[in-house]
Amino acid sequence: MVSASLLIIGDEILSGRTQDKNLAYIATWLNEAGIQLAEVRVVQDIREDIVGAVNAMRAQFDYVFTTGGIGPTHDDITAESIAAAFDLPLTTHPEAYRILTEYYGAEDFSDARKRMSKTPEGAELIDNPVSIAPGFQVENVFVMAGVPKIMQAMLEMLRPRLKTGCKIWSQALTIHAPESKMASRLGDIQEEVVGVSLGSYPFFREGKIGTQIVVRSADKALITTAMELLEAYCSAHDILREGRADIV
Amino acid sequence: MVSASLLIIGDEILSGRTQDKNLAYIATWLNEAGIQLAEVRVVQDIREDIVGAVNAMRAQFDYVFTTGGIGPTHDDITAESIAAAFDLPLTTHPEAYRILTEYYGAEDFSDARKRMSKTPEGAELIDNPVSIAPGFQVENVFVMAGVPKIMQAMLEMLRPRLKTGCKIWSQALTIHAPESKMASRLGDIQEEVVGVSLGSYPFFREGKIGTQIVVRSADKALITTAMELLEAYCSAHDILREGRADIV
Repeated sequence: MVSASLLIIGDEILSGRTQDKNLAYIATWLNEAGIQLAEVRVVQDIREDIVGAVNAMRAQFDYVFTTGGIGPTHDDITAESIAAAFDLPLTTHPEAYRILTEYYGAEDFSDARKRMSKTPEGAELIDNPVSIAPGFQVENVFVMAGVPKIMQAMLEMLRPRLKTGCKIWSQALTIHAPESKMASRLGDIQEEVVGVSLGSYPFFREGKIGTQIVVRSADKALITTAMELLEAYCSAHDILREGRADIV
Repeated sequence: MVSASLLIIGDEILSGRTQDKNLAYIATWLNEAGIQLAEVRVVQDIREDIVGAVNAMRAQFDYVFTTGGIGPTHDDITAESIAAAFDLPLTTHPEAYRILTEYYGAEDFSDARKRMSKTPEGAELIDNPVSIAPGFQVENVFVMAGVPKIMQAMLEMLRPRLKTGCKIWSQALTIHAPESKMASRLGDIQEEVVGVSLGSYPFFREGKIGTQIVVRSADKALITTAMELLEAYCSAHDILREGRADIV
């Protein structure tokens, strides 16, 4: 199984001013690519915090994706922080410099904008079809923009560079009962059907208590086996259930 | 400044199946209480991962808040993980046991439900007015439910236990120009007006590029000073701007 981690960089997420939209998108995208997102961290725009998180994560996981902090302003310190994490100099990337000069025109290519052509030495660029200024890759670390549309485009650009694992399928069963009604049986099925992972997620809808049970596996047949055991238990114990959702 | 961190526990967030709603809520709530959320982590339902994150965070920050994993099912392993992090036995909390027995009735108080009365020895409960099963506190770690409505109620319950700092005010100015137009001036104002923090957040709306500049400070007068400098620069450089938002 290929593992990944995500580092979200930005004071604006931690202050509550901006609601992060990248976590859910990247989590789903990686899951569909058969890559397991195993940890996420959100840190402030502070160099030591970024360095510490990147170094911990790149040692532990196959991939590290970062979002945010690669624009032209004083609080965009991701490139210099990644350089520090790898103990590399921060240098002007010739190709980034070229495409940004071409885009802005030599006259409007200000010092602030030139910041966006700096990368750790030897970095490989990640194309940005939306607003030109590129992301970059150093070893197993992929540095992307924070603006969702740009990040999503960059993620597609780097898809060919990623090893992907087998897709994890999942299927949900919704029951109209608190999860404690099923809890002990869920634990048993988890042990009986080797190769599936069962999750149980309580909800309140229009004042009613219910639970969504999610069965996940790389093998669709095992999902069906577990699902049949769940439904049999519901029938035997008068637990109201909805039809199975599709396997996705 | 009082500092805090948030640990979100749950495979369902990392697989993309569930979109986390707690981060943004807690970030805003803490900011209004004058507590700075300095780091967030999301980890899987794996005991060593939870223990590692909790121990790193409780050493570094004044408070650690956790969400998720305190229900009755096999994948709810937060209580045992927190006990392990503090090297405390996991025991039945007498008061939790009492209120859960009263709520479910002795007959329906199954073994699965009894799991919800287990806490690290000596933990202090956090009341749950929504669905009874309590959260708990061990030293500077606050363990809450993952269901947003329950989490929000628990957060209110523990407000009196928290040291709060001074509120950080913020004010936003929206300009209809890419952030690189303002970047160099933003860096200067950040240095000139000591005690404010300037953030710059580019956006695309209906195909147009713009930037939201956010000025934050504990002192409203400093925000106004910085805002006047920003507006003067916009006027001098023909940068289209909207009216200032309220200070919030």
